Amino acid sequence: MRITFLGTGAAGGVPLYGCSCAACSVAKTNAVFAREPCSALIESGTTRILIDGGLMDLHKRFAPGDLDAIVLTHFHPDHVQGLFHLRWGKGPSIPVFIPPDPDGCADLFRHPGILDFNPQKAFSAFEIGGLKVTPVPLIHSKPTFGYVFEVTGGPTFAYLTDTRGLPNDTQHFLQTIKPDGLAIDCTFPPSGQPKGHNDWTLALDCIQAVDPAQAWLIHISHELDNWRQSTNPALPNRINVARDGDWVDFTLPS
Amino acid sequence: MRITFLGTGAAGGVPLYGCSCAACSVAKTNAVFAREPCSALIESGTTRILIDGGLMDLHKRFAPGDLDAIVLTHFHPDHVQGLFHLRWGKGPSIPVFIPPDPDGCADLFRHPGILDFNPQKAFSAFEIGGLKVTPVPLIHSKPTFGYVFEVTGGPTFAYLTDTRGLPNDTQHFLQTIKPDGLAIDCTFPPSGQPKGHNDWTLALDCIQAVDPAQAWLIHISHELDNWRQSTNPALPNRINVARDGDWVDFTLPS
Ligand SMILES: [Mn+2]
Ligand SMILES: [Mn+2]
Ligand SMILES: [Mn+2]
Ligand SMILES: [Mn+2]
Ligand SMILES: [Zn+2]
Ligand SMILES: [Zn+2]
Repeated sequence: MRITFLGTGAAGGVPLYGCSCAACSVAKTNAVFAREPCSALIESGTTRILIDGGLMDLHKRFAPGDLDAIVLTHFHPDHVQGLFHLRWGKGPSIPVFIPPDPDGCADLFRHPGILDFNPQKAFSAFEIGGLKVTPVPLIHSKPTFGYVFEVTGGPTFAYLTDTRGLPNDTQHFLQTIKPDGLAIDCTFPPSGQPKGHNDWTLALDCIQAVDPAQAWLIHISHELDNWRQSTNPALPNRINVARDGDWVDFTLPS
Repeated sequence: MRITFLGTGAAGGVPLYGCSCAACSVAKTNAVFAREPCSALIESGTTRILIDGGLMDLHKRFAPGDLDAIVLTHFHPDHVQGLFHLRWGKGPSIPVFIPPDPDGCADLFRHPGILDFNPQKAFSAFEIGGLKVTPVPLIHSKPTFGYVFEVTGGPTFAYLTDTRGLPNDTQHFLQTIKPDGLAIDCTFPPSGQPKGHNDWTLALDCIQAVDPAQAWLIHISHELDNWRQSTNPALPNRINVARDGDWVDFTLPS
């Protein structure tokens, strides 16, 4: 199972439009440090799953038929804005697995086009290709699911954004799984009372509680990049701040 | 006053995602025939006005401070989807003139960021830079304004999308103005009962009724391009099917 972090940015991304802070200035001159809207690709065998639809050039990145499914964490625009255009396409419909949110975003439910929305239940696993996918509730301003991806008898990977901390039942479920990899919202630098999202402190607390083999911080704001540039905070070896384009292979135990 | 047609496509654009019709095939191999979401730039002196925000790379096309204002025809996603990202930027706010639509689109009103939304009244002119701008009601599935741009004592240009025909008061207003240029929704080939948008027949009827010096057909679907490719329908000299990137200068009468 390969995970590719297509985008690792918070809403607005890095560089933020019109911002000349240190982090945004670096990202403007060196695309390695730029952050597109938060999104990832899961590949296992011939199965390809897109997590979230916030990349605005989805219709250019993926040819028709490339994706077996899309899973959406929630219906905030930075996670669905690329679907407004894609949906009007032709050809086979794309299954889109979603949290139960009666509002969706704008007119996506009224005019789904080629998107086939499938609301899911918390902790009730479904299958895409050979992959088992389990939605786990998160804590955010709209109904939001994280997702655990599992190859039968093989590696597990959990993708958890957007969230501020973890609900108890989600934390217990993840502690039982003890995933090989975990990606988690880390929008803000340490801030005492972060709103709607994890800050650095809370993200590291969640990782410690779940104890995955490896972890990636995602949904990164320019504030977090700035703070890291100026303070160079230490991180345990197994925890990485993800960059756009980073990928990791999880292999079956031999 | 210069008008540049940044995008001339209907929702979904040309090529339409996953479509292999003749028009979409041509547009895939030759970008001259591609159509981005419907949008235009008005320039007069140092004043720059963007009509509609459906281009998804707005934050890359325009540097902060480049635009004096944005005017929105209506809140369908293909006319505002690029604003979801842009709004989170930093710096001076951008005045956005809009029709009175209490819903807006998704959470744009709740989280406007740097966008400063200004609802307007039909036929009540406002000023941007030296330009007089008059909103005129159109006929569509959401509250929708066309806009007439006027340089004092000089040329006038009317931009009318999305619409199916013209309300009587709008038609009378435009007949009085007799604009130098007019751009109008022409989404479909002749179809008898077009829904929500003009077809070819209705668009030409509207142009004949208003009698502008020059006219451009915009908000073009792949169906219209296909139909034109196969039938090569005649057009009066003063009427053009706009292409992305086309521009026209209207000069002051000498
Ligand atoms: Mn987000
Ligand atoms: Mn969110
Ligand atoms: Mn439209
Ligand atoms: Mn519309
Ligand atoms: Zn910044
Ligand atoms: Zn087509």
